[in-house]
Order: sequence, then C-alpha cells, then structure tokens
Amino acid sequence: RFGIGYLEDRTGTVDSIDGGTASGVDTDNTILISRFRLNIDGTAETDGGVEFSARVRLQADENAGNGEAGTAQLSGARFSAIYGGLRVDAGNVSGAFDNLANYYGNEPGLEFFIGQYAAVDYSFLAFSSTGAGSNAVFFQYAVGDFAFGASYDQATFAETATAGADTDSGDRWDISATYTFGNVTAALAYGQTDRPFGGEKDTLTVLTLGADFGDFNGTLFVADDDVAADNLNGTAYGFSLAYNLGAATTLTAAYGDGSADDDTQQYGIGFIHDLGGGVSLKGGLGNTKAGDGDSRVRADFGVNFNF
Amino acid sequence: RFGIGYLEDRTGTVDSIDGGTASGVDTDNTILISRFRLNIDGTAETDGGVEFSARVRLQADENAGNGEAGTAQLSGARFSAIYGGLRVDAGNVSGAFDNLANYYGNEPGLEFFIGQYAAVDYSFLAFSSTGAGSNAVFFQYAVGDFAFGASYDQATFAETATAGADTDSGDRWDISATYTFGNVTAALAYGQTDRPFGGEKDTLTVLTLGADFGDFNGTLFVADDDVAADNLNGTAYGFSLAYNLGAATTLTAAYGDGSADDDTQQYGIGFIHDLGGGVSLKGGLGNTKAGDGDSRVRADFGVNFNF
Amino acid sequence: RFGIGYLEDRTGTVDSIDGGTASGVDTDNTILISRFRLNIDGTAETDGGVEFSARVRLQADENAGNGEAGTAQLSGARFSAIYGGLRVDAGNVSGAFDNLANYYGNEPGLEFFIGQYAAVDYSFLAFSSTGAGSNAVFFQYAVGDFAFGASYDQATFAETATAGADTDSGDRWDISATYTFGNVTAALAYGQTDRPFGGEKDTLTVLTLGADFGDFNGTLFVADDDVAADNLNGTAYGFSLAYNLGAATTLTAAYGDGSADDDTQQYGIGFIHDLGGGVSLKGGLGNTKAGDGDSRVRADFGVNFNF
Repeated sequence: RFGIGYLEDRTGTVDSIDGGTASGVDTDNTILISRFRLNIDGTAETDGGVEFSARVRLQADENAGNGEAGTAQLSGARFSAIYGGLRVDAGNVSGAFDNLANYYGNEPGLEFFIGQYAAVDYSFLAFSSTGAGSNAVFFQYAVGDFAFGASYDQATFAETATAGADTDSGDRWDISATYTFGNVTAALAYGQTDRPFGGEKDTLTVLTLGADFGDFNGTLFVADDDVAADNLNGTAYGFSLAYNLGAATTLTAAYGDGSADDDTQQYGIGFIHDLGGGVSLKGGLGNTKAGDGDSRVRADFGVNFNF
Repeated sequence: RFGIGYLEDRTGTVDSIDGGTASGVDTDNTILISRFRLNIDGTAETDGGVEFSARVRLQADENAGNGEAGTAQLSGARFSAIYGGLRVDAGNVSGAFDNLANYYGNEPGLEFFIGQYAAVDYSFLAFSSTGAGSNAVFFQYAVGDFAFGASYDQATFAETATAGADTDSGDRWDISATYTFGNVTAALAYGQTDRPFGGEKDTLTVLTLGADFGDFNGTLFVADDDVAADNLNGTAYGFSLAYNLGAATTLTAAYGDGSADDDTQQYGIGFIHDLGGGVSLKGGLGNTKAGDGDSRVRADFGVNFNF
Repeated sequence: RFGIGYLEDRTGTVDSIDGGTASGVDTDNTILISRFRLNIDGTAETDGGVEFSARVRLQADENAGNGEAGTAQLSGARFSAIYGGLRVDAGNVSGAFDNLANYYGNEPGLEFFIGQYAAVDYSFLAFSSTGAGSNAVFFQYAVGDFAFGASYDQATFAETATAGADTDSGDRWDISATYTFGNVTAALAYGQTDRPFGGEKDTLTVLTLGADFGDFNGTLFVADDDVAADNLNGTAYGFSLAYNLGAATTLTAAYGDGSADDDTQQYGIGFIHDLGGGVSLKGGLGNTKAGDGDSRVRADFGVNFNF
C-alpha cells in the first residue's frame, strides 16, 4: 500500500547540516506513506493430516517521523501445527487479545490509524512484523459456535545491569472465549503480565460484541486495564461501524475513549473503494488526543493492493 | 555474477591481530568479486487496467575494500502505478537522470566500472539496492516518439544536531525530455538540489545522444555540473561504443573526462560473450584518474547469469 | 523445525529492570527452540551444459541464551559452476572438511547437539547461514569411486589497529580425498591456517570411515589438531551409529572425545520418527563436558519439516 499521509505537528529525527542528527524537530506534515509486506510461508502435512507451517515476514515501511523511506526488515519466525479445530503457534506469535474477534473492529484510514481500542494501555502479546517478537506459545481451539484461545510468553529479567545478576521471571499470559449466535459474536479475554522482583502485575480484561446486519457491521468494545501508571488505569470503551454503500464502496467510522486522566481519545471516519483485482482506494480522517493534551488531526489517502 | 577483479593499490579495512580493525591498509589487488541480486516483485491490476506493482531488492556484494564477503541486504520499497504510457513511482525510486536514455551508455567490465559519466559530481536521485533510498516520487509519460520524466524528493534538515532544532527543506527535483527519430535517440535533463539555510543550490544539466547502426551502438554525453566544490564544477563529456563481433560476442569501450581541475577521467574496453541460457562471460580493462592524482588500472573477468 | 530444548545451567543475556542488559545470568533451562531456514536459489544453464547457480540463505533461530526469538538473517552469497563431476564454488562457501563424507556422522537430537567431532578445535571454512561468511573458493571433482576437494580462503590482517598499518596474509586452505568401496566410504582431509606476522600455523588432519549394512549405519572418526592453545592440541576421536527400527523410526547415537587436557567430550542418543509429507518427530538426550569441567545434560524434542 502507498499514499499520502497528513499529521498535524509531525515531528521526527533528521540529519543536521553540521553533522549528526537532531530529534524532535518539525518535519513536513504531509509525507509519502507506504508499506510493503510479504509473508514467506512454508507448509508441510503429515500422512495423519496434521498441517505444519512456518512464517517469516518481510516488511518495509516509511519513517513516519521524518518522511524518509526505510529498508525492508525480516521478522522472527512463527511455527504452527494445525489439526481440525486445534491450532498451536510457537515463536513470534500473536496472543489471545491480538487474535480476539472484533478487538480491532473497523479501523478507518489507509493506515488504520483510528481504533476503538485507543484507550488501552496494556502491552499484549502480538506478532512482530519487523522485529524478533516474543518466543511464546498460542493455543486456539474451535468447536461448534465456541472458540477458545490462550497464550504464554516466558520472560526473564535481571535485577541489575551487571554480569551474573539475580534474575526473576516476568511471564505474560492471556486467555479468551468467543461465542457466535446467529450474526452476533461475543468475545471475552483476560491477560496479565507479571512484574519481576515483586512489582505489581499488569492486567487487561476485554469484552467485545460484533454484529452483521446486511450491509451494516458494528462492534462494541469495553475494557479494563490496570498498568503501572495510575493516570492510565481504568475503563476503556469504544465502537466502530462499517456500511457498504453500493457494491464497491464501504464507509467506516470508529470512536475510542477511556476514563483515566491521560487516556487517549480517537475518533474518525474513512472509506474503502474496491477497484477489482485486489486493488482498493482507501482514505481516512480522524482526531487523536491524549488526556488534556492538544488534538492532532490525521488524514491519509492511497492505494492498497495484494499480491 | 561472480569473477575475479584487479584494482591497482587496493586499500580497505581489515581486522588487526591485536583486536579492533585498521582502515586504509594495503589489501590484495586481486579479489573474488560477486553480486547476488533478486528483485522481490508483487503486481496487481484493477478491473480498469491500471497496474500496481511493488519491489524490494535483495542484494549481496563482496566488500571491495578487503575482499571479504558481505551479507545480503534488503532495500527500501518502490511502488508503481502504470497505465498506458504513464508511470508513477513512489518510495525508493530512480529519478529522471537515472532513468535517462543513454546516460550510462555502454559500460565495460563485469562490474561496469568504466563510464562516460565519470566526471559528473552531482548526486542525483537513484534507487538504492542495499539501503532505504529516498522517499520520492517519479513521473514518466511516453507519447509517440517523445518521453518525459520528472522526480521530486522531499528532504528536511536540521540547523544543528540538537533536539528540537530549526529545520529547513533541502528538496531535490529533476526533469527530462527524450526524442527518438529513426535509430537516433536524444535526451536532455536538468536537476537541482536545494541546500537548506541559504546554501547555494547544486545543479546538473545533461545531454545525451545514442545511435544504432546495424551491429554498432554509440553514445555521446555532455553535461554541466555546479556543486559545492569549485574544483569539481564544470563540463563533463564522454562517449561509449559497442560492436557485435559475430553472433555471440560484443566489444565495448567508454571514455569520460571533465574540464574541472579535480574531475575524474576514465577510459577502458571490455567484452561480453553469450553462452546461452542467460549466461555470459564478461570482462574489462580500464584506467581511472582523479585530477592530477595517480592513475589506477582496474580489470575484471567473470560470469554473469540471470535467474 | 521447532520444539522444546533443555540445557542444564543455561545462562544468557537478558534485560535488566533498571535499564541496560545483564550477561551471564541464569535463565530458564527449558526453552522453545526453533529454526526457520529458506534457501533462495537461482540457476541458469549454458548451451554447453555448464550449470551456474547462486544461493543466499534466510534463517531465523531462537536465542539459545535467554530463550527469546531472533529476527531472520540473510547470509552472504554462494556462487557455483557445475559441469559433470566438477564443481567450483565461490563466495560464502564450505571447504573440504565441511563437505567431507562422514565428518558429522549421525548427530542425535532435533538440534544435532552431539557429535563425534566434539574434540576438534580447528576452525575450518564453512558456509555461514546468518553471516557474510568467507569470500573463498572450493573445488570438487568426482571420478568413479574417487572424489577430491580443495578450498582456499584469502585473508588479510593488520599488525595494529591503526589506519594504514602493515598487513600480512592469514590464508586458509584444505584438501580432501574420498574413496568408496562397496558399502564403505573412507575419507582423508588436511587443512591449515597461516597466522600472520610469523605466528605458528594451525593444522587439522581428519580420517573418517562410514559403512552401511542394511538397516545399520556406522561412522568412525579420528583427527589430529594443532592449534594455538596447547591444552586443546592432540588427537580427537569418536563414532556414531544409526539404526532403522522398523519402517519409520531411526535410533541414533554418537560419542566424541579427545586426548588434550581441555578437549570437549560429548555422548548422547536420539531418535527420528517419520510422519510422512516431509515431517518428522525428533529428539535427543546427551551430555557435554569440557576438560575437567562440570557435565551439562542437554535434551530436546520437536518437529522438523521441509517446505
């Protein structure tokens, strides 16, 4: 995908004319935005019907700060074993939140820059497209109208930055359950991250509802996050909409906000226009505000294509 | 492609036996040279016939300084929209000079190490094979015997290397026009780079002529560059030749020189022998001299193959 | 391939809770192990029947120290020319030892962590899967029951870590001969590495024997290494076994030890169970000890699949 992106008061790191670099400087609000994403997948199936697959992702993004191009990066590898409704992922995996039905909902914009989850401040397990990611395990089991997910991510931390220091575990795990009745899907997930050396644990609980009625899709989102910073703790809520305006055009909208003093509020609208052959025009316009900070308008427009 | 390369007085950076590395030391004049290049392309076409494509390049080169191997690198991504004679590239693109007909002419050697453009000192927009490149736009339009090109590369620079410093733009752009009459092609291009904070701008003007007569191809090159260093400014000129000696063998030659005191002069000859199946033997022998410096002889020989 | 790996007293480098990283700390003995390996090959054949090919490898491994995932890496490129029984490799190549018949023998475990060559301390030329490797040449010639191999790796070193320092060559080469009579293969190889600036050269001589009798495969290994450290010089010896237990299951075992005071001793057993479709279960259990140090038990279990 590529296009044009506008961000009010964009700042970034650029080269200085007397050598070195300068961070946090004003850069062009309107830049060329782009993403090249290629999944390198390998698959094998045993005589007994168990499918094994592996994925590494190759992705290049523009630098959103200074508007320059970025080299393509390779991700860590994800390995999967799939048999019937059971799936086990290992390596650079997504956890129960990242896989949760209607967690992201309808995100307006070529870059999906507005989301109903805007006020969630918990860092859950997700596939890293341009980094190593976590070396974790994710289980998923689907039976009839029910689906269950769970992930576990082992992590070790040192008490001090010295060789041979004492260590403690900061493991992270999450679980989810999803139920589909007719054209409505409800999903509930809980996750926590242990803080090593007696720190308080972080937690997140999310409930989502999604419904399809003909050309209309809507999602509701409610969450409660408990993280280290008190001014970010509390309830997060939002909704998103998508409406098919004729055969090829879809309008989208999303709103997300939270109860904490410094939670991020986002709202915006967007459109998708299908040109056929896996190509679509996309664009969006939205507003982001963190706590009592200044609002920043963001907009984009461009082409998305699959190959 | 791979082969053997000779460079008089080759220097590079090598490991020291007491730890660390040492730069600028004498290394073997004759080394193994190689390049592995793979274009990772994706393409999609809309129902209306507009073609969209994206490219990331994977390339591995030997280290020309110390003769050691290098790991493969990924480039930044280039995105293209093509419709009839119109083409728009965005991202890590080549500009109007790099796409100009007969700019490079016939370059002798497996590594194309001799060129008629030797005395040009202006840095124009070009696709980066192993880096991010510039995040720029290039337009091309062909109609009948005429073709036009233009590129624009947005760039921001900071006045000092401190956070939040003042910034100014150092944009770069170029335009070109090409006309083909019978077996002769004439091309003219102009480009400039703005220097931020009131610096003088750099410019380059290039005129090329190319002609095919049966087994003979010849190009002429004249340019005028105006860059920051006075001892590099002025006229650059050169020519190149290719002659098909029988069905499978081609001889090449090129000469490039400039009017400025420290312009680089290059001349050399080469050959290409086609072995079929996309494989060819290639070699070259040439001489390079910058200003009143010492001449350095360079030669190479090897195999080029496409896959 | 992916699975679970156990290593007694595993240590690694982890993040510290007060910033920075700490090396050599205790980490989880049992971690998720994985390797994603993709060979990117290109091939062309001349009209005369000479095959040219090029390879770059893309590989992602877990971090065996702290159990975290690692991003995929690209290797340096290897180029090959093949004609009949003659093969020439250039670039990031394997030398005569790495290509020697029965050098590695049967290595138990998903990660091949036990080998008959355990006590060899000479560093021979080998393809680098995640780095640039050496820019070397390898020749191989097979005629009837005989095969010969040889490699040469040019290297330059500086005397001190200062710009323009004196240099000397530290070239490395090796040769091998292999003879197959009936179901027995015997192979002999010799290699040496010159130390620059008058240092003593390192050498390695290896003799291997391999035999197949129905469901049984066995290898014998004897070597003599002469390296800089006296406590690692001397004879290395070992053997390995593989036995097909029915149609789909193979048992493996290996033992390696040396005469020097600080040579590494390894022994272990493993299994391979074929699930069809290029998928197999693999596991191993073994013990490693360096000199009079503590024994460390290592075990793994997992799935290996090809795509």
